Amino acid sequence: MKAAYFNGTEIILDKNYLEPKSDEVLVRVRLAGICGTDLEILQGYMKYNGILGHEFVGIVEKSHNAALIQKRVVGEINVGCDKCDFCKKGIQRHCPNRTVLGILKRDGAFAEFLSLPGKNLHVIPDIITDEQAVFIEPLAAAFEIREQVSLKSHWSVAVVGDGRLAQLITQVLKLSCSNVTCFGKHKTKLKNLTNNGIKIKIGIESSDEQSFDLVVEATGSNSGFLDTMKLIKPRGIVVLKSTIASRDNLDLTPVVVNEITLVGSRCGLFKSAIDALAAGIVSVDYMIDFIFPLEEISEAIEHAKKPDTLKVFLKP
Amino acid sequence: MKAAYFNGTEIILDKNYLEPKSDEVLVRVRLAGICGTDLEILQGYMKYNGILGHEFVGIVEKSHNAALIQKRVVGEINVGCDKCDFCKKGIQRHCPNRTVLGILKRDGAFAEFLSLPGKNLHVIPDIITDEQAVFIEPLAAAFEIREQVSLKSHWSVAVVGDGRLAQLITQVLKLSCSNVTCFGKHKTKLKNLTNNGIKIKIGIESSDEQSFDLVVEATGSNSGFLDTMKLIKPRGIVVLKSTIASRDNLDLTPVVVNEITLVGSRCGLFKSAIDALAAGIVSVDYMIDFIFPLEEISEAIEHAKKPDTLKVFLKP
Repeated sequence: MKAAYFNGTEIILDKNYLEPKSDEVLVRVRLAGICGTDLEILQGYMKYNGILGHEFVGIVEKSHNAALIQKRVVGEINVGCDKCDFCKKGIQRHCPNRTVLGILKRDGAFAEFLSLPGKNLHVIPDIITDEQAVFIEPLAAAFEIREQVSLKSHWSVAVVGDGRLAQLITQVLKLSCSNVTCFGKHKTKLKNLTNNGIKIKIGIESSDEQSFDLVVEATGSNSGFLDTMKLIKPRGIVVLKSTIASRDNLDLTPVVVNEITLVGSRCGLFKSAIDALAAGIVSVDYMIDFIFPLEEISEAIEHAKKPDTLKVFLKP
Repeated sequence: MKAAYFNGTEIILDKNYLEPKSDEVLVRVRLAGICGTDLEILQGYMKYNGILGHEFVGIVEKSHNAALIQKRVVGEINVGCDKCDFCKKGIQRHCPNRTVLGILKRDGAFAEFLSLPGKNLHVIPDIITDEQAVFIEPLAAAFEIREQVSLKSHWSVAVVGDGRLAQLITQVLKLSCSNVTCFGKHKTKLKNLTNNGIKIKIGIESSDEQSFDLVVEATGSNSGFLDTMKLIKPRGIVVLKSTIASRDNLDLTPVVVNEITLVGSRCGLFKSAIDALAAGIVSVDYMIDFIFPLEEISEAIEHAKKPDTLKVFLKP
């Protein structure tokens, strides 16, 4: 099959990559998305080697469960051992022996086929388009914040970042809190958020400092972390939603002095995300940027790296 | 009066320092303690200039409230503006305009006299000795953790650090959780903790990794933070109890990937600490190391810096 894999140095398009052979469900990938994490992996994050990609929608080709065959599905990306304490509690996402689609010891979605356990898959309703379905994985990560933090409707909330994940988070928070501001660098990327009452700001003014009850850091940069620490009130909650690749001189002193709570947040469960897209309460269509054929993986990645780009797709 | 002040470069003993002249209560200091924060201030932390010291017990000399005169008191160290939202909620500790005894814009306790507002002072019962009373401020900081985190009795709890604060925290956590381990570097400093069923360990074994529900970082060092991140379970809670002076290469990636919650924690209210000392449920006497006259401030500080030292006192 066609597959784009990372060998630790560069991404290679292989037209004769071995198809997944396992007892899992075989899915023919219809569309996959390039995520910030993919770009970090190409920089060495997670030391991952293998087929990239963890955001996808596809059609079930083979399954022991006949009811799944030919269904259009998306898939939770963490696969646990089913034996440890975390798996027994249903938290496969934190299984110490887990594999993660396209991120950790498991080939991903930038290929014609992938495999996952049946219980990871969700059949999606027809009202959700393929392009929208690819947003379910990052949207679930945004909804994870609602599982971790008990949001109060009167809170002043800020999101730092203007990428895809930042915008999904901003929209999800707006479902619970009326006063939401997104701090970004690229006005063109953010303009659609204003449609549903979200404030957008380029740069922090002095009146913004220490004025937010909750701030979500979704830039993946050191400067984003510094901005976040400027915005948060004493005793406020900061959600760290992206790994920070560059990390010189990270200063946690203000966290202690101002008694900030930092909450690390990663993958979420898919159900809330699927429901939100089906109900149309979160908008993603405006983020669809460009669909590349899988053969143009290198061009697609270069395009995804541009600061003004929102979502880039790959079609195997 | 005699006072030991820090001029930004060195600590100076001045025998003719001006006595506090304010509308506040005047307290004659009987005994003061040297704290890790004092040693950090001498390294430039908080850019503080003035009389050092924030742990003390003293006798009220002058007060508008006659009932306070000649009473033996300790004092909360944060003084708020009484006008901001934090002060109105009784959280003077986070007032943006606060002064802090011996730490921020307010002369401290390494002197014959200090002044504080009457509401900051607590009259202490006779059963508490002067030496014990000096521990009330750091013990309150330890009790602050119980205000911030809803401790579960079945949790496995670790404290990283073996200084005074770490030991107070360990004892406070043991009041709520049966399984408490203190990870330190100096066995002699920790040996008294074993008396009440606390486990002590020098160094982390592989079986300790990712095995604690709650870990408190109380070393103030980068390596202490790294050890903390080794010990904490995925989805666990880390309390940051000391500012980290050295901060190269602090990596927050595991916080995100393992969805750790980091809780910054600083000063606490004094009541729980006074009650615990009066009831004898926290032991501090074994930590009393040496009492220096204020005139020997430089020797006292050198002694406090030694790795095996627990609590050093100053007597004005």
